[in-house]
Amino acid sequence: MAADIAEQPAGYARLRQPAYADPIAAVAAVVARRRPRHVVFTARGTSDHAALYAAYLTEIRLGLPAGLASPSAVTLFGARPDLRDALVVGVSQSGGSPDLAEVLRVARAGGATTVAVTNQPDSPLAEAAELTIDIAAGHERAVAATKTYTAQLLALLMLIEGIRAGDGSLPADERAALDALPELAERVLADPVPTELAPRYRFAAQLVTTGRGYAYPTAREIALKLMETSYLPALAFSGADLLHGPLAMADPDVPVIAVVGTGPGGSAMREVLRRLAERRADVLTIGAGVTSAGTGSAGTASGDVTDPAPAAAIVLPRVDERYAPLLDILPAQRLALALAVARGEDPDAPRGLAKVTATR
Amino acid sequence: MAADIAEQPAGYARLRQPAYADPIAAVAAVVARRRPRHVVFTARGTSDHAALYAAYLTEIRLGLPAGLASPSAVTLFGARPDLRDALVVGVSQSGGSPDLAEVLRVARAGGATTVAVTNQPDSPLAEAAELTIDIAAGHERAVAATKTYTAQLLALLMLIEGIRAGDGSLPADERAALDALPELAERVLADPVPTELAPRYRFAAQLVTTGRGYAYPTAREIALKLMETSYLPALAFSGADLLHGPLAMADPDVPVIAVVGTGPGGSAMREVLRRLAERRADVLTIGAGVTSAGTGSAGTASGDVTDPAPAAAIVLPRVDERYAPLLDILPAQRLALALAVARGEDPDAPRGLAKVTATR
Repeated sequence: MAADIAEQPAGYARLRQPAYADPIAAVAAVVARRRPRHVVFTARGTSDHAALYAAYLTEIRLGLPAGLASPSAVTLFGARPDLRDALVVGVSQSGGSPDLAEVLRVARAGGATTVAVTNQPDSPLAEAAELTIDIAAGHERAVAATKTYTAQLLALLMLIEGIRAGDGSLPADERAALDALPELAERVLADPVPTELAPRYRFAAQLVTTGRGYAYPTAREIALKLMETSYLPALAFSGADLLHGPLAMADPDVPVIAVVGTGPGGSAMREVLRRLAERRADVLTIGAGVTSAGTGSAGTASGDVTDPAPAAAIVLPRVDERYAPLLDILPAQRLALALAVARGEDPDAPRGLAKVTATR
Repeated sequence: MAADIAEQPAGYARLRQPAYADPIAAVAAVVARRRPRHVVFTARGTSDHAALYAAYLTEIRLGLPAGLASPSAVTLFGARPDLRDALVVGVSQSGGSPDLAEVLRVARAGGATTVAVTNQPDSPLAEAAELTIDIAAGHERAVAATKTYTAQLLALLMLIEGIRAGDGSLPADERAALDALPELAERVLADPVPTELAPRYRFAAQLVTTGRGYAYPTAREIALKLMETSYLPALAFSGADLLHGPLAMADPDVPVIAVVGTGPGGSAMREVLRRLAERRADVLTIGAGVTSAGTGSAGTASGDVTDPAPAAAIVLPRVDERYAPLLDILPAQRLALALAVARGEDPDAPRGLAKVTATR
């Protein structure tokens, strides 16, 4: 798992090479010509969080409605939705789940433009779809997905920005931002704080993660990674939903990980941080939106104390909010790995987890 | 909360009266004439689970793609999705969340057909929408939503079946099934088992809920109700997602509540029950799909032991799977109430929960 995590900067660099970027641009150009009226994503597990990120991108950057489909409506209940105006995107590292392949097969037969985003371009999912994007992450050794997740994020970002451009090509500022990711990711992975923070959670009985907008998929992926590797029950809520009820569970004994960026999503998290502070919750922030922790905590980065100061902060480089998910997850993966080891678990052989799960 | 729960059969009967059913049919007829190509639901908290149920209904019964929108894409990031072919449905008991009203306002301005489903027909949400459905649940005393949730489920079911019919009128067999709900709900609420089971969870540190298809929203609502009233961290997974990783967390110390019906969703849960039994998980089933528990447990209903037998079973009347969510949640609400009392909490005054939450 450590090796997979360390390969992510190289994975970003690889997807930016013409050998991989050009085919993504070509798929984007085909999709743009079809002018879909709405976009349906289908995925499970970690890939579902990449799909959720792509749904936000689609609504915000393309101005198209986007939703995540429940495969079971099609595979169990025989739903045959009219998808003639739709782009349907299946996201799966293995491409091996029969239910996702069936959703794409049905959508394609029904007239949708279909795209498989996968690490296995010869998989059943890719075979079912008209178009395929190879995320080119290489063999993932650990069962818990890390480098395939971030490669999905970047591939989906390149696809959607390519559709926005119309011909698949990206504007110069977009290209520059994406080409900076490998070095930024290297810098983030060199930070010792995430690993140092793991002992704080050695005896946590549960954990809450939260974020808003682009950061909400990150909050969900952090929770899943902690559950898969450390068996720590981790509840993910959008910052807005947290205020609607589950905040009652937050108290000094339930640690919170809040993903706090710099744009509108990060700003909206201020209210959540304030309410968590009122409940004296123990908060770790991840992101560029909080630059220092309370006194005496690991992760204290500088003297400019934010209001309210979290117990700990993992401070990330400042990037546009829509690129932040490609960096924010990295320290959380390392925290999950270090915590699993601290709790005596083997993150490379987690209980009850298979690489390809054949649900229908 | 007990009084709200007890009023649900009367709530079902009220919505079936012409004074409330006819306006829903009229809204359905308007929507049907517009021939939307896809449906977007927007909601938060408990109402989000009613919306998720409606999304399944939309895909399966109407053959239209359906998704749940993230209000933040519109309210925080300024997304203006092209919704000319869309039906956009806002679901909220209070109708008071500014973000949902803004999503409907933007959608209506952009050409969508908009419907508010609310217990407050004079609310900002209803004002923002072109069409309004009054769920007519009466004043809800408890902060944790119960009778407004089930009224939302029935109102959405009547809306969608009315759209399917084309002119809002329901076929005779549908009317008969819906008119039987009040008596079935009375019978379900008379069952002592849910309250008797509460002590089993007195010292549970966390809990997992699961279901597939129509039962998945129920699993999510059970988890939320337990968190809101008992502060018990409850993780909801679709049966398929559970097999993709979080199953690792299931062991004899983590109780599982599985919603198991009789149709395709219930059948698909057999594999989940089998895998949970392999991990020696402590499973309570709710629904018509499992008719007896293992020997010696509360909830044992008969001698026909299912394979594998859960530790406990709340056995419900057999109805078509798409009506089951209107019954399955009832015993879970009573379990959540009894568990809150057993844990020394006040379910009528939960910590950190407000009836209207003003998120943007």
